[in-house]
Amino acid sequence: MMKAAIIGVTGYTGLELVRLIQRHPILQLGTLHSHSQHTANSVAFYPHLQGLVEQAITPYTPEKVMAENEIVFFATPAGVTKNEVAAFAAADFPVIDLSGDLRLKDGEVYKKWYKSVPAKKELLKKAQYCLPEFMETKPGNLIANPGCYATAALLSAIPLVKAGLITDMPLIFDGKSGLSGAGKSLSDHSHFVTADENMTLYKLNEHQHIPEIIHGLQQFDSSLKTIQFTTSLIPVKRGILMTLYAKIKKDVTELELYEAYTSCYHNRDFVRMQPLGKLPQLRQVVGTNFCDIGMGLNPQTGILTVVGVIDNLVKGASGQALQNFNLWAQLDEDTGLKDIPLYP
Amino acid sequence: MMKAAIIGVTGYTGLELVRLIQRHPILQLGTLHSHSQHTANSVAFYPHLQGLVEQAITPYTPEKVMAENEIVFFATPAGVTKNEVAAFAAADFPVIDLSGDLRLKDGEVYKKWYKSVPAKKELLKKAQYCLPEFMETKPGNLIANPGCYATAALLSAIPLVKAGLITDMPLIFDGKSGLSGAGKSLSDHSHFVTADENMTLYKLNEHQHIPEIIHGLQQFDSSLKTIQFTTSLIPVKRGILMTLYAKIKKDVTELELYEAYTSCYHNRDFVRMQPLGKLPQLRQVVGTNFCDIGMGLNPQTGILTVVGVIDNLVKGASGQALQNFNLWAQLDEDTGLKDIPLYP
Amino acid sequence: MMKAAIIGVTGYTGLELVRLIQRHPILQLGTLHSHSQHTANSVAFYPHLQGLVEQAITPYTPEKVMAENEIVFFATPAGVTKNEVAAFAAADFPVIDLSGDLRLKDGEVYKKWYKSVPAKKELLKKAQYCLPEFMETKPGNLIANPGCYATAALLSAIPLVKAGLITDMPLIFDGKSGLSGAGKSLSDHSHFVTADENMTLYKLNEHQHIPEIIHGLQQFDSSLKTIQFTTSLIPVKRGILMTLYAKIKKDVTELELYEAYTSCYHNRDFVRMQPLGKLPQLRQVVGTNFCDIGMGLNPQTGILTVVGVIDNLVKGASGQALQNFNLWAQLDEDTGLKDIPLYP
Amino acid sequence: MMKAAIIGVTGYTGLELVRLIQRHPILQLGTLHSHSQHTANSVAFYPHLQGLVEQAITPYTPEKVMAENEIVFFATPAGVTKNEVAAFAAADFPVIDLSGDLRLKDGEVYKKWYKSVPAKKELLKKAQYCLPEFMETKPGNLIANPGCYATAALLSAIPLVKAGLITDMPLIFDGKSGLSGAGKSLSDHSHFVTADENMTLYKLNEHQHIPEIIHGLQQFDSSLKTIQFTTSLIPVKRGILMTLYAKIKKDVTELELYEAYTSCYHNRDFVRMQPLGKLPQLRQVVGTNFCDIGMGLNPQTGILTVVGVIDNLVKGASGQALQNFNLWAQLDEDTGLKDIPLYP
Repeated sequence: MMKAAIIGVTGYTGLELVRLIQRHPILQLGTLHSHSQHTANSVAFYPHLQGLVEQAITPYTPEKVMAENEIVFFATPAGVTKNEVAAFAAADFPVIDLSGDLRLKDGEVYKKWYKSVPAKKELLKKAQYCLPEFMETKPGNLIANPGCYATAALLSAIPLVKAGLITDMPLIFDGKSGLSGAGKSLSDHSHFVTADENMTLYKLNEHQHIPEIIHGLQQFDSSLKTIQFTTSLIPVKRGILMTLYAKIKKDVTELELYEAYTSCYHNRDFVRMQPLGKLPQLRQVVGTNFCDIGMGLNPQTGILTVVGVIDNLVKGASGQALQNFNLWAQLDEDTGLKDIPLYP
Repeated sequence: MMKAAIIGVTGYTGLELVRLIQRHPILQLGTLHSHSQHTANSVAFYPHLQGLVEQAITPYTPEKVMAENEIVFFATPAGVTKNEVAAFAAADFPVIDLSGDLRLKDGEVYKKWYKSVPAKKELLKKAQYCLPEFMETKPGNLIANPGCYATAALLSAIPLVKAGLITDMPLIFDGKSGLSGAGKSLSDHSHFVTADENMTLYKLNEHQHIPEIIHGLQQFDSSLKTIQFTTSLIPVKRGILMTLYAKIKKDVTELELYEAYTSCYHNRDFVRMQPLGKLPQLRQVVGTNFCDIGMGLNPQTGILTVVGVIDNLVKGASGQALQNFNLWAQLDEDTGLKDIPLYP
Repeated sequence: MMKAAIIGVTGYTGLELVRLIQRHPILQLGTLHSHSQHTANSVAFYPHLQGLVEQAITPYTPEKVMAENEIVFFATPAGVTKNEVAAFAAADFPVIDLSGDLRLKDGEVYKKWYKSVPAKKELLKKAQYCLPEFMETKPGNLIANPGCYATAALLSAIPLVKAGLITDMPLIFDGKSGLSGAGKSLSDHSHFVTADENMTLYKLNEHQHIPEIIHGLQQFDSSLKTIQFTTSLIPVKRGILMTLYAKIKKDVTELELYEAYTSCYHNRDFVRMQPLGKLPQLRQVVGTNFCDIGMGLNPQTGILTVVGVIDNLVKGASGQALQNFNLWAQLDEDTGLKDIPLYP
Repeated sequence: MMKAAIIGVTGYTGLELVRLIQRHPILQLGTLHSHSQHTANSVAFYPHLQGLVEQAITPYTPEKVMAENEIVFFATPAGVTKNEVAAFAAADFPVIDLSGDLRLKDGEVYKKWYKSVPAKKELLKKAQYCLPEFMETKPGNLIANPGCYATAALLSAIPLVKAGLITDMPLIFDGKSGLSGAGKSLSDHSHFVTADENMTLYKLNEHQHIPEIIHGLQQFDSSLKTIQFTTSLIPVKRGILMTLYAKIKKDVTELELYEAYTSCYHNRDFVRMQPLGKLPQLRQVVGTNFCDIGMGLNPQTGILTVVGVIDNLVKGASGQALQNFNLWAQLDEDTGLKDIPLYP
């Protein structure tokens, strides 16, 4: 058993790490930390944990965290890791960062999209962006876990890009997310009375996952320069439904397209290709680490519609972090992650 | 005052006609009819109407309807009007049909998309498809009211097509609708436990509004042959949010695009252009006859994103039917339709 | 036409006043004011109002409000009216206050339940608590509009108390409210991710409407000393469903109980008694000024269950404020308030 | 490992059994059966199970089920078990029945409340109603699993009744349930457009769990003759929030009341008493087998408010069935049932 510390345990992804680590056969909960709350008893804040988790949320120093744990997860908002991870990295202590701070190799790009000072160059150099389905080697000790929208977008698009099946019409991603994707911070957008019975597009052409997706796709086609990417809030708690529109090269058949996907994912545990003619519903992945993908080619327009669904807090965050841990620890990638979800 | 009969009053659009006709200064409720229910008192089925509407739901013949009313609204599912409207049409009695039966001029197209026998040729010839914002003359006595998705799609796209600003990349429509769009009939898709906390794409490349939209766009560019059109259910009661992606001709500026819209809609009551930089939220039109439209051009991709929102039961059905009545009766198009909606 | 000013126009009840005043045949929107926002154009904040309301939100003084309007509505949170109403009251300018500041005659009771300094005695003396269904004379110029829970509770219970049909077992009120009842201020309780798929009881035995309800019932039975009152949040935007349990005196029949209600409400426009055997659903009053009431007696227990439903923002606030205005102006009580609501 | 068959696997409680059995260390999925569907592959109907469960849904006979499994769960609607269980009972094969067919000892009572012919006398005699928290001995081979409302009601009320703390005023239960409680069958009540933004009381004084609750309470006070019990639908998928009002004997303190509960539940895994002053929220038990209980005494009225929350599909059905299995198998009662739930 390895002890895992969580920094940022009181956020949604922190709590999801608690849930998943407790079910993991190798990991166990180590020390729990938060920037906003220190309490002798986590239950007072999260009554669902009563009788299940009794650890306190405690103040911390990097030294203390390293002394008492064997790995640390940062489940903090953007802007925390870049400052706090240095001591861990210097000691080569294993870190899995769920925030966006270490995902972009180029500090200037971070600055432009996050409107904030980037992490130091040596940190960005050491960090590895790990989308597990496309990792070829065991990751190192500083893992940048992909963003939620980026995960759904990349898993939906890479097979097409890798197989060279698309024209030069930019890929169009139309992403919809539940409210937990925006975190637990309070704003008029997340007020129940605003969000319920509503749908809102936000950050048009400005979402900070855009450069992350472009960079991810460029690993498979360096000529790809840009994408069209839209994000919306829908009135659900959890889940991302990503619709991708891709103009396909002439004479490519639907079956060839489908095989591009199955050849990528046939030996992967967490991408479930839907049978041709069937599209996944959002709810079939909620609570799971799956990304379910379906598709259909329109012969009139030559446009392929791909639908990918994930749970933003699991495959889009904490579940994928454990999947990355499994790769790091050279376990089966589905270790501790393959339960039947709540349904309905 | 003119008496208006409603055939199909127990469906969602029939009930919405009741609401809107009661507020209209020229129209009043005439006789009310349903294929599924005959009752001496409408209140027993719809307790929200107690004290507000006391008319019974009665059996009918075309003769009786024409004798007791001055206009008739068909708010029936597809397949009813095509059989029942003949007597009214023969008498040149004013009819506004909210179903899809009279929208497509070509019976073969109806057959293909509706998988059903079309209306007789002389009916299709007499019927006029009336999207009020683009009507140039007073409509005749057999009005085909546009479909809900088609209304949102056409109002979002026509200005671009009319002004010749798009390339030959097919327009991509990504439409989302609340559950009332699927009607009150029971199915697993509309069960609360299925629909809540879920999102589902359905009828990919098969939705019967596709030929209606193509035909509507061809009025402005006969070279346009096809579109890409996707429909989804989101867990709200009412409303359609239509996202349109259009590849724009080189060197066209966002301002020119915006002006294509404002020049179409500057003197129309029910299309509200949002200021540049602002996209409409779904909830801001629920309960109204408005179509609110916003947009943003991505200079990297050359793709314009247009967002149009309507209430599927108002601008997408019963409100637009009254707007068409206003045009028919040569009233101001907003007569009886310009109330402040429920908010929040 | 009379001009009506609104102080607190940016809150939910302020916006609802805007909607209802615009439909009223005698009232028109005068000047609009807010403590939190001053803007040249109300539309920027509330895009649903574009094309419908163009008034600016402006700073104000009592003098300016009185000079430019003929009546003023306070739609402010508790704590504002008590300080700001003095100038209006001194001038005997008509005021309808939707907050709780003037509802309790006894300042000590206000202090206990609102945990705050009460309004001055002369203001409390001048103010009249106006539940329109039980007003016997035209109200004066300082109207305290009832609270939302209190409205639902009193309309459900007064007929029983007035007719002397209950035992000395305390009345038990179990109230459920949509999130708009808690106002637009941000808190973890109103976050979509917290409120959705959840139900929460709050302020057990501490809700500030308790003394208001007791006082209202004592007008009809001075021996009534206390009630049991519970409040919950359910995941809807609007609406209160109040369940009342009353132990009935021996040998009183269900019909006698029902007649106690019909004799109270038979000539009132806004209380709709449901037929015996039928209970009202919440949604049948949303968007209306109705309070729909149903009931059923359990012969085994001798307990009567009464269910009353209202829209907390209409009959529970702004609609009732206009109903009180109608009484004040000696108009029919339903003037401007009797539209068919949105449904479904 | 023991193989468990499920009859009625396609319903909500059947699917929940699949989820829970798969996590259980002793049980494993045996054969799966349904009255409505036979399919070679369960995944086609339930895409969330792809890659997780591959068993087919097959036709069955009692003999086949007994030959291939070691225990059988009936997750069928009322009316199935009473006919089909005879062969299993005759063979003394272990059965856990989640339906209402075997819960009431008196066939006449079943007939009155279920409006249907009861099970044969010898079956009712053999069957044991097992609310695990109050089982004193290992159950036998024909277990009647309690109803969802009854579970919430009994766990909330028994400590008071057992300790003799209440007056002769009937206990008042005000229960609210999510839509999954009504099953997956289609009706206007469960249509999204009806249920969303709504709340409805149903079956006033007629719910078939009433005799089950009375009988459960009479085990602890045979003088208790009746209760007041109300059921409502709230727009959530899962969960019951039960509010109980009990008139307490004079001079009993809140602390004594609290101790009545803690003495009942201090050594039970699945009832979590909330600290005094704190009430449980519905969402804190969703997905779990917990029943969380909080309370508060109103000294003015002498009425105690108790709030108990459960997940109707887990503690109210399938989780409790496994808890009963654990008792039957003489395992710890929390075996396989103590995971951290999805949150938020």
